[in-house]
Amino acid sequence: MGLLSAVKRILVGKPIHTKHAHHERLPKVFALPVFASDALSSVAYASEEILTILVFGGMLGFYKLVPVSLVLVALLWVVVFSYYQTINAYPQGGGSYRVSSENIGSLAGRVAGASLLIGYVLTVAVSVSAGAAAITSMFPQLQPAGTAIACAGVAILALLNLRGAKESGIVFAIPTYGFVLALVGMVAYGLFKASTGVGPVPPQLPEQTKDVTWVFLIAAFARGCTALTGTEAIADGVPAFKAPEAKNAATTLVMMAGLLTVLVIGISWSAQHFGVVPMEFGEEGYRTVVAQIASTLFGNSPIFFFVLSMTALILFLAANTGFADFPRLSQFIAKDGYLPRQLMSVGDRLVYQNGIITLAVVSIALIIVFKADTHSLIPLYAAGVFLSFTLSQAGMVMRFVRLKQVGWKAGISLIGAVTTAAVTIILLVTRFTEGAWILVVAIVLMMGVMAGIRKHYDYLSRELSVGPDDSVREVKTTVLLLVPRLHRGILKAIAYSQSVTNDVRAIHVTLDPASVGKIKEDWNRFGADIPLVILDSPYRSFIEPIINYIDQTVAEDPSVMVTVIVPQAVPKFWWHGLLHNNAAVPLKLALQSRRNVVITNVRYFLR
Amino acid sequence: MGLLSAVKRILVGKPIHTKHAHHERLPKVFALPVFASDALSSVAYASEEILTILVFGGMLGFYKLVPVSLVLVALLWVVVFSYYQTINAYPQGGGSYRVSSENIGSLAGRVAGASLLIGYVLTVAVSVSAGAAAITSMFPQLQPAGTAIACAGVAILALLNLRGAKESGIVFAIPTYGFVLALVGMVAYGLFKASTGVGPVPPQLPEQTKDVTWVFLIAAFARGCTALTGTEAIADGVPAFKAPEAKNAATTLVMMAGLLTVLVIGISWSAQHFGVVPMEFGEEGYRTVVAQIASTLFGNSPIFFFVLSMTALILFLAANTGFADFPRLSQFIAKDGYLPRQLMSVGDRLVYQNGIITLAVVSIALIIVFKADTHSLIPLYAAGVFLSFTLSQAGMVMRFVRLKQVGWKAGISLIGAVTTAAVTIILLVTRFTEGAWILVVAIVLMMGVMAGIRKHYDYLSRELSVGPDDSVREVKTTVLLLVPRLHRGILKAIAYSQSVTNDVRAIHVTLDPASVGKIKEDWNRFGADIPLVILDSPYRSFIEPIINYIDQTVAEDPSVMVTVIVPQAVPKFWWHGLLHNNAAVPLKLALQSRRNVVITNVRYFLR
Repeated sequence: MGLLSAVKRILVGKPIHTKHAHHERLPKVFALPVFASDALSSVAYASEEILTILVFGGMLGFYKLVPVSLVLVALLWVVVFSYYQTINAYPQGGGSYRVSSENIGSLAGRVAGASLLIGYVLTVAVSVSAGAAAITSMFPQLQPAGTAIACAGVAILALLNLRGAKESGIVFAIPTYGFVLALVGMVAYGLFKASTGVGPVPPQLPEQTKDVTWVFLIAAFARGCTALTGTEAIADGVPAFKAPEAKNAATTLVMMAGLLTVLVIGISWSAQHFGVVPMEFGEEGYRTVVAQIASTLFGNSPIFFFVLSMTALILFLAANTGFADFPRLSQFIAKDGYLPRQLMSVGDRLVYQNGIITLAVVSIALIIVFKADTHSLIPLYAAGVFLSFTLSQAGMVMRFVRLKQVGWKAGISLIGAVTTAAVTIILLVTRFTEGAWILVVAIVLMMGVMAGIRKHYDYLSRELSVGPDDSVREVKTTVLLLVPRLHRGILKAIAYSQSVTNDVRAIHVTLDPASVGKIKEDWNRFGADIPLVILDSPYRSFIEPIINYIDQTVAEDPSVMVTVIVPQAVPKFWWHGLLHNNAAVPLKLALQSRRNVVITNVRYFLR
Repeated sequence: MGLLSAVKRILVGKPIHTKHAHHERLPKVFALPVFASDALSSVAYASEEILTILVFGGMLGFYKLVPVSLVLVALLWVVVFSYYQTINAYPQGGGSYRVSSENIGSLAGRVAGASLLIGYVLTVAVSVSAGAAAITSMFPQLQPAGTAIACAGVAILALLNLRGAKESGIVFAIPTYGFVLALVGMVAYGLFKASTGVGPVPPQLPEQTKDVTWVFLIAAFARGCTALTGTEAIADGVPAFKAPEAKNAATTLVMMAGLLTVLVIGISWSAQHFGVVPMEFGEEGYRTVVAQIASTLFGNSPIFFFVLSMTALILFLAANTGFADFPRLSQFIAKDGYLPRQLMSVGDRLVYQNGIITLAVVSIALIIVFKADTHSLIPLYAAGVFLSFTLSQAGMVMRFVRLKQVGWKAGISLIGAVTTAAVTIILLVTRFTEGAWILVVAIVLMMGVMAGIRKHYDYLSRELSVGPDDSVREVKTTVLLLVPRLHRGILKAIAYSQSVTNDVRAIHVTLDPASVGKIKEDWNRFGADIPLVILDSPYRSFIEPIINYIDQTVAEDPSVMVTVIVPQAVPKFWWHGLLHNNAAVPLKLALQSRRNVVITNVRYFLR
């Protein structure tokens, strides 16, 4: 076993037998944390996002936080009811890619697929960055290392997923329920304090620079939409529930929406009541809004650390759902021929390792470019998610129409589709210059790439399919054995050449005509029955004379396959190879485009 | 012609026929600039080096600049007289590597070789950095780009040398004579000014922190020794002179020493008389000492720019001599088996391209690490040069002894050897912590690497030499043809396999037992007479079952060579290949250490 394999074994673990592939069925109490961590964790940054706009509206703006959050919650329930129907319609799992492909068409499916894939990348980048922000809020001295912490987080998640981390309920349950407990407790303690007459604390606001108009409020609302990311997860994962799957999944969805409602309104109310103003990311001593609320209520006590630790943990879990979903979806799309086949290959740990690695690389790149700043990443995020919501709901509407089930159910889906479409447009417009344009460019690019990939695979299957006229046509083989000088390694190559064909020619390229006599003499000792061809090289290239001779040989008889045999001494340690001239590599490059030519290394192992 | 070759052709030019190899013979007037640019250019930084120490001795220290320079000149003539003898003893060229190898022994030769190679790298790094400093002295706004300018300079020199820049006399003559003219003119104008009563200008010195002791003066002298680097060049290049070679070379050497004497004393006197104090490198508005003298005398006039342009030009020329010498010397050492053979290969432009590239990469790395600061690079430089001087002179002494020519000539060489040995020790001791330790480490490392390389080549020639018992032993070939699925490309591979041997077996690795029936059916259409082996893969690896089967086949009959044939579809554009699974690469890696196994790609070209 080589060094590389050994390192891989240590990091990733031993191969797992196919028979161990299995699908755990989750009861609701465990399914909730597994599928809801992504959605629930968004409350760690959603209120802060809204406030970053509202503060420019002065006091009047600031106190719009709770009203805006209430509108958000209304939107949440519209989306939830739409997905409630999807769950019942697709008990085998109704991801946006599938629902829109089946009901609207392949193009819509690909748009949904592209925006979902981008969404998963951003789930990872945003959640891990927010998790790093929670950590640096606890330990301000780590602030300069924020980007490094986030990148390390992604790397660790990638490694765990390459090992094949089972989505085991218990691992998810502790941080998710811990987070809910911590935040609900914090809000409750805040309410208790308020009831004892603490606050409202007037916020320390920057100068008012914007009027509180409708446009202003819509922009603030758009920022908050990030709270809804992740709500589709339960609909995607119905088959993982215990029977009756659809019913349990639907119930869990409603439970999740209830928790999300309490948390969004609770955090927004707390921020508003205790006058918490968001800080500039990267500013000395930056703390998230949640960290500021916790610090206001609990000071530097262990409870403060509990709240933030749970926040960091659930955010890393949320990122982990990206690692579960991205490889699975990209594998689906690859099966349809729109992404590289390599994404379909299941590794020796029963995971789609190529998808995991792709996701990790892209999200680490994003984190580095955006310096792990959630505020700059989110504009790329929400619009894509809402686009896939829209396509999914629109797909449901088409389905109801197709099945002629036009009634109140179709109405709900229609409301969902129209609402999420409107939000998508709002998000694209209000955040276009802040980063949503990148999303648009990325989706358009991915559509182009996907179309190109499918085109290539179609062409490949056309080209490679065996037709009625195809047959095995007999060929002859001519071996050209390269002989730089006579050494022991050549003997093996001579034997091999003679075992392959009767038509062997030895080729020697000479830079120095004076040495030809010696080569000929040496050759006669062992290769007497093989003709030796001496090639001159006026330009001192070893490659060009050989190429020319090969071209000549091929031209002589097009039915002949020319096998070029390059004898190669293999040293005991690979770095010794750096001291050898290795003609095979440039020769292979040069022969790349030649038909009817095959290159073979015959290796001679040094003791 | 591929894209890469096209780029290479544009940058490097067309191949040159061997018959065009030639050696230009230079008359003295052209030989002087070609061989003396390195030595003469050192005056651009030598006085500054001395002053960086002397200023710590206050006024008393500062006014030791001219006396220290006089000692330096005395040392110069000792070295010059020694080399004068070398020229006469070695009219075919008496490089330090050769003289010490022949007269002291291989080990001494290698020490000289290692220190020379390091010296050439530093010639490039120091000269180009000093050239960049001359440019930024002219245009202070370019100061932040100093390192980039130096790196670009090295890259351009490398490219010119890869094209095979002839050391054409005229190209060297203009900047070298221009530089001499500019500096001699500057010194003369300074003398004239002084004679009209300008100065001496009292220097603005930092606080005195050191006493002007002997140790202090020796340290200052050691810094100045960098002025002598490059004096060996003429002795190395005797064969390039017009006949009588030795006589002409010796005369040129004396001419060079004369010019160097005038310049060193002239610049030191000017700096001292006009009170020029060296600035801190990297400090805002940094100017070299030569630039400060020129600016004091000529202000911002065109003459100032002429002096500095000539300085920059000669420094780049000096770096170019590194590019001429390093590849030539490394090729000599490689011929003796102490460096990789690749350094001996003459490229299609008749140059040792691998040596040129190595030199460029290493010196760019040095420039980046030392931020193109000549003051930090020089401590690594002079000691190595003086070590090779010492070994060369010691070799001459041994030669006189061997030839029983013990007389005044041997005496001169002995004085040279002892003096340069003393200076080497002074340089190592006084500058050890400033960087000379890196030189020591580098030489020791290189000695180890050179010994290791020679050992490997010796072992290689032992292992590969054909003994009396060696003979071509007949082998049989078994072909294992990998069949992922039946497609048109396979047909060609079947034909090829059958042309190679009668013992062909088709191998199919299956992840899904359900698909086996289809493969068998397909196979019977075309491969009826070839047995199809189906391999199970419980761990979903395509590679492992194949490896196991190969090992089994080899074990069955050790006289059999197993040829693994991997059919490969070659797309029209290489990037399409990214969309294909390519089994050959991991298979090759895995089979790396297996004997009696040969892997062959049979390619099928897509239209």
